[in-house]
Amino acid sequence: MSLTSQNPGLPRLIDSEAVRQLIFDYAYHLDMNHPKELVELFVDDCEVIYGPNFGAVGREAYAKTLEGIGTYFVCTSHHVSNIVLDYKNNDEVHVRTVLYAWHRYTRERPDSHVYGQYHDIVVRADGQWKFKRRELRVTGHKDFHVKECVPIGRA
Amino acid sequence: MSLTSQNPGLPRLIDSEAVRQLIFDYAYHLDMNHPKELVELFVDDCEVIYGPNFGAVGREAYAKTLEGIGTYFVCTSHHVSNIVLDYKNNDEVHVRTVLYAWHRYTRERPDSHVYGQYHDIVVRADGQWKFKRRELRVTGHKDFHVKECVPIGRA
Amino acid sequence: MSLTSQNPGLPRLIDSEAVRQLIFDYAYHLDMNHPKELVELFVDDCEVIYGPNFGAVGREAYAKTLEGIGTYFVCTSHHVSNIVLDYKNNDEVHVRTVLYAWHRYTRERPDSHVYGQYHDIVVRADGQWKFKRRELRVTGHKDFHVKECVPIGRA
Repeated sequence: MSLTSQNPGLPRLIDSEAVRQLIFDYAYHLDMNHPKELVELFVDDCEVIYGPNFGAVGREAYAKTLEGIGTYFVCTSHHVSNIVLDYKNNDEVHVRTVLYAWHRYTRERPDSHVYGQYHDIVVRADGQWKFKRRELRVTGHKDFHVKECVPIGRA
Repeated sequence: MSLTSQNPGLPRLIDSEAVRQLIFDYAYHLDMNHPKELVELFVDDCEVIYGPNFGAVGREAYAKTLEGIGTYFVCTSHHVSNIVLDYKNNDEVHVRTVLYAWHRYTRERPDSHVYGQYHDIVVRADGQWKFKRRELRVTGHKDFHVKECVPIGRA
Repeated sequence: MSLTSQNPGLPRLIDSEAVRQLIFDYAYHLDMNHPKELVELFVDDCEVIYGPNFGAVGREAYAKTLEGIGTYFVCTSHHVSNIVLDYKNNDEVHVRTVLYAWHRYTRERPDSHVYGQYHDIVVRADGQWKFKRRELRVTGHKDFHVKECVPIGRA
């Protein structure tokens, strides 16, 4: 379904700006170590998948997975581009993006470089766009601390 | 010609979303090793220039250049940003973007990092935006397998 | 202040396209070594902050800081993403972006990689969007030649 065939109109374009901002706010609050602000970008019954055995169901569980980020990393930088939006209806959009993430660790280990994709389900909840589901797939990496990743499924 | 002086209106903004999606779909299908889907992003009489002596004229010839990507690379990741659109008319836009590409090879050789620019001519064909011409210029690189590149022409 | 709550309408979306192009033109002219074109992206009484003790007040002073870029670098590549726009009024917008910059030096020293954020104040001046203030904050880096940087303020 292409954007032109949808003839989405002005409200759709304004929604798309807000959805992109959500994507960028996630990266920002992650890099700034703002776990509280991060969690608020998700709906209550969210699902977050960072790996086949690493993630969370529900906002409360997700908050727990974020507890360590402040001390585990010296700093991180998340660069998100190639944003493609696929609206399912006026209040739900599936989002595909490309990620380049750089991490510097507190422990003595080399910086890591992660090349991946986010596959998200974003929904409008009380007038605000929020993550319903966020899945990180990894194309490849160098020295990433997460050992088991969801692959992108390259043919 | 700036966007504001053009007063492009809503249809132009919708077109721009579609053109950006084309740019991102190219990167996606390249990273996913989808040569068939890649070729469909181009018009029949397209021109693709990956280097002074490396490219293709026509969709059929282009399809041939893509034959090896599945086995040549273990994986690739193409990060496209800094998208600037310069409309020549309602059905043709010149596009300038910045690329960071990472490649991991099947053969024993180091991963490569490519910093470059795409310079594209994108046209509306049967209601769909497609590549008419795509040229990769290389700002600099580390361990890139393509030895002869089109320079960006830094002053 | 979210985009949806602002109900910005079409003129705002067109402005946003122009502001993003300003951001990208800066990166382009920097990488192309076009100091004259770079300076023209700023208002006369601009402020540019590349570090706590490195920057310029006023367009003339800024032009001086750019004098060396042609010979200091063999090439550079500036990748700007994660663009978030926060309009203060119809003619002023605060812009937050994420930067990945790669530099290759003329002198014998390793390439550098910079992960940072730009924090900009962009204003409409005579119908053109220009930088009023541009501040580079650095999340982290490898082999960057600028030794003292403004930190991002990670919590």
